[in-house]
Amino acid sequence: MDIAKMDEFAKKKGFFWPSSEMYGGLAGFYDYGSNGTLLKRKFENAWRRYFLGLNENFFEIEPSDIMHEKVFKASGHVDGFVDPVARCSKCGTQHRADHILEDFLHESFEGMTPEQLKKVIDEKGVKCPSCKGELKEVYVLNMMFPVDVGSGKRGYLRPETAQGPYVNFLRHFNLLRNRLPIGLSVIGKAYRNEISPRNLTTRMREFTQAELQIFFDPSQVEEHPGWGGVKNYKLRLFPDKEKKIVEVKCEDALRMGIPKFYVWHMAKVQQFYFDVMKVPKDRFRFRELSAEERAFYNKVHWDIELDLPSLGGFREVGGVHYRTDHDLTGHQRLANQKQEVFFNERRFMPHILELSFGVDRNVYAMIELNYEEEGDRAVLHLPASVAPFQVAVFPLVNKDGLDKEARKVFETLRRDFDAVFDQSGSIGKMYYREDERGTFYCVTVDYDVKKRKDVTVRDRDSKRQVRVKLKDLPKILRKLIDGEIRFEKAGKAIKPAKPKKK
Amino acid sequence: MDIAKMDEFAKKKGFFWPSSEMYGGLAGFYDYGSNGTLLKRKFENAWRRYFLGLNENFFEIEPSDIMHEKVFKASGHVDGFVDPVARCSKCGTQHRADHILEDFLHESFEGMTPEQLKKVIDEKGVKCPSCKGELKEVYVLNMMFPVDVGSGKRGYLRPETAQGPYVNFLRHFNLLRNRLPIGLSVIGKAYRNEISPRNLTTRMREFTQAELQIFFDPSQVEEHPGWGGVKNYKLRLFPDKEKKIVEVKCEDALRMGIPKFYVWHMAKVQQFYFDVMKVPKDRFRFRELSAEERAFYNKVHWDIELDLPSLGGFREVGGVHYRTDHDLTGHQRLANQKQEVFFNERRFMPHILELSFGVDRNVYAMIELNYEEEGDRAVLHLPASVAPFQVAVFPLVNKDGLDKEARKVFETLRRDFDAVFDQSGSIGKMYYREDERGTFYCVTVDYDVKKRKDVTVRDRDSKRQVRVKLKDLPKILRKLIDGEIRFEKAGKAIKPAKPKKK
Repeated sequence: MDIAKMDEFAKKKGFFWPSSEMYGGLAGFYDYGSNGTLLKRKFENAWRRYFLGLNENFFEIEPSDIMHEKVFKASGHVDGFVDPVARCSKCGTQHRADHILEDFLHESFEGMTPEQLKKVIDEKGVKCPSCKGELKEVYVLNMMFPVDVGSGKRGYLRPETAQGPYVNFLRHFNLLRNRLPIGLSVIGKAYRNEISPRNLTTRMREFTQAELQIFFDPSQVEEHPGWGGVKNYKLRLFPDKEKKIVEVKCEDALRMGIPKFYVWHMAKVQQFYFDVMKVPKDRFRFRELSAEERAFYNKVHWDIELDLPSLGGFREVGGVHYRTDHDLTGHQRLANQKQEVFFNERRFMPHILELSFGVDRNVYAMIELNYEEEGDRAVLHLPASVAPFQVAVFPLVNKDGLDKEARKVFETLRRDFDAVFDQSGSIGKMYYREDERGTFYCVTVDYDVKKRKDVTVRDRDSKRQVRVKLKDLPKILRKLIDGEIRFEKAGKAIKPAKPKKK
Repeated sequence: MDIAKMDEFAKKKGFFWPSSEMYGGLAGFYDYGSNGTLLKRKFENAWRRYFLGLNENFFEIEPSDIMHEKVFKASGHVDGFVDPVARCSKCGTQHRADHILEDFLHESFEGMTPEQLKKVIDEKGVKCPSCKGELKEVYVLNMMFPVDVGSGKRGYLRPETAQGPYVNFLRHFNLLRNRLPIGLSVIGKAYRNEISPRNLTTRMREFTQAELQIFFDPSQVEEHPGWGGVKNYKLRLFPDKEKKIVEVKCEDALRMGIPKFYVWHMAKVQQFYFDVMKVPKDRFRFRELSAEERAFYNKVHWDIELDLPSLGGFREVGGVHYRTDHDLTGHQRLANQKQEVFFNERRFMPHILELSFGVDRNVYAMIELNYEEEGDRAVLHLPASVAPFQVAVFPLVNKDGLDKEARKVFETLRRDFDAVFDQSGSIGKMYYREDERGTFYCVTVDYDVKKRKDVTVRDRDSKRQVRVKLKDLPKILRKLIDGEIRFEKAGKAIKPAKPKKK
């Protein structure tokens, strides 16, 4: 899969395409079509179920997208949320300075100052990618979108969902009976006026984050009640010093200086990718950020990376950030309102562990990782947790009452499954269409539905087909989807059905 | 319920409160807390399941919030999406002119021109509500939030979700095999720079809409395949002429000049409120908008209204809008790109029927309609479709292993139910807390869990309790929630459990 193929596939098959397309698009904004939206919702729901399920004190909240200027004063975004820009002295285009260097020299320049970047540009003789003009100026631009509210109050579209939980922490500490840890999650939009949005939906100006902010007692950072369950579990780490992937038991990760509370959550993140998203092991790693790369307030910072050849290899799809008390302290100072809590018979400022995921990047990754070409068409081998549909139902032909019978089957199945009905085209074409969006099973209703009371069930991955009695269909499909039986055991194996001649 | 009580209840019980609260708030922006978010998600999911279930050709999409300026040029928002403003010549405050008249004279002034409003202000001697100064100027302001993207491209935060489906229509017409009707739904944020946001979450500057845009063949506006199912169903209508609620069979509504395709969807909307949201009949009506009130492009327009005493009576929570070809024609003209389709052997411009719902208003309404005070506390009698939790599990006391046993019960139930675990406080307090957020059933695990292998199940509405065998618990709860058995039949009736003395 390369990026041009992804672009074409996503457009043609209803996943995503540029926003406001008929007006030439708006760089950095994408719309999800009907299949993309289903996949995205599925990812969000799987994420919600898994991460909020880690602790019964973890909840989702929904803060507003636009917040008071002071929220972002306190967080440091008004002053510090800037990107380095190199401006072409010939065509005037502003480029993200570290990105043009990255493209040119194939290494990371994240976290460098404008002065450092300017030096590399001069040394290597890097020119404007648009017109080959000279890049004389390198400076910073704030990436937030300001919004003027009412008669002149300044707000900002949030550049990350995280601040919502921070300013809402104390209300929830009271509501949730003054206990720690508390987890407050937001699944929602964030907005950044990127200089150079690119790579389709993986670097946009409007994007969806799924973040979980965990507020905990810092004196317990070397504890976790669930530790026994993970201590022998092996993490796939790419430490900054070693610059290669090593498999490290959680227990041994502690000796690398990563706190136990942090390691436990790394294990859960990795299990999410392996067990729920079914990502192949060698396509996943945690990458440690160097001191220069990570924000100064992140005491420990490992990115979650997936191997995405269309983007050039391992790329960030999330991160685990130990933000300490940086955020709550900032708000306490600017709002002049104590954020400390009384818990475990002490008064203190909670620390924050952030699990942060780019939803669009993960959706993109799920397409790429599960995409397979078979001749002139594609199959998405999506796991059950994110496949837009579990089952599709078709009539073999649109006559002799088969369409009505098929619709009856569909109406029964949709009660218990994510089901879709189709009757527009040949069976072969309908199979292909479902394969392309990753539908697990196709049920075809043919003439035997009346005589023998059975239907054909076809498996997406093996393309094999079996006959299943109508009365057993929901039960059998449930077992197949839950992985309790193998497809060969689901019914009587048959050759692909062909339309009967009348 | 009055608005002050709603405000207090929503804040105290984790439903919603002003955004950026610690910085004095930002007028027109609210954050949903953990209970409010659960309720909102449930409403959104119930809406999605119900309305997308009306036709297998109805799908959700996710267009970006920020769109190209031209999208809103074509839609008419850049030029026409304005509100009338009365400015105080003393304190300078800008007020929404029709709203201050409404507050002062208790009638609707929606849709009046600035000139008409100025005349009423002068005639009635209406003054500035803030300082009693004179309201000399009345003019219009555009309500959209402009956003400058990249190096100077103009975009807008969408003031309605509807334009997303319109500009994405053709792609989906192709994707969905060139058939009509097609339904494209968006559940997402919209943004309006209201002059006077007010009434808590019911008139905000950032709010959530759930909208379904149905594209259909206008020559079939007097048809619907499902007509037989609704023709004798009675709608609760408040026609503009009669100005009172009348119950009218769908069949008879046709004679009032409402097209059949429109009436069928009205019936489905009403059934959503009665059958899914369990709204009492007398709290619901469709109100016909007068020619002055409705947008010029809406050929037929009935608002969906619920009776909300906290806001003064029947208030709009949604609407059914027959927008004809206004929107597609606008985009065809400005983008110079044909929006016509070839279907039913003709080439034509599809018409649009819009089902539009304010999610925040509906969530607010669900709280108000289901709120009941019992002494010093409240119960939310929410229907199963939107109650944040279906079941809560507690240990009777946090010792003798009861907490572990309760957690086991919780882990089993959470697989099939929206379940929550609590162990912080007396049983009585935990019951109250669940009543306040509308949890249907509370399961208390006491000392009999080991001896008799049973637990107490308590009903939110009747407060009655029964003993249920552990092995039957999931099955019994399922039947209770699905309304298949009455609570009295669920197990052996008992008096409220009291902590055993040790």
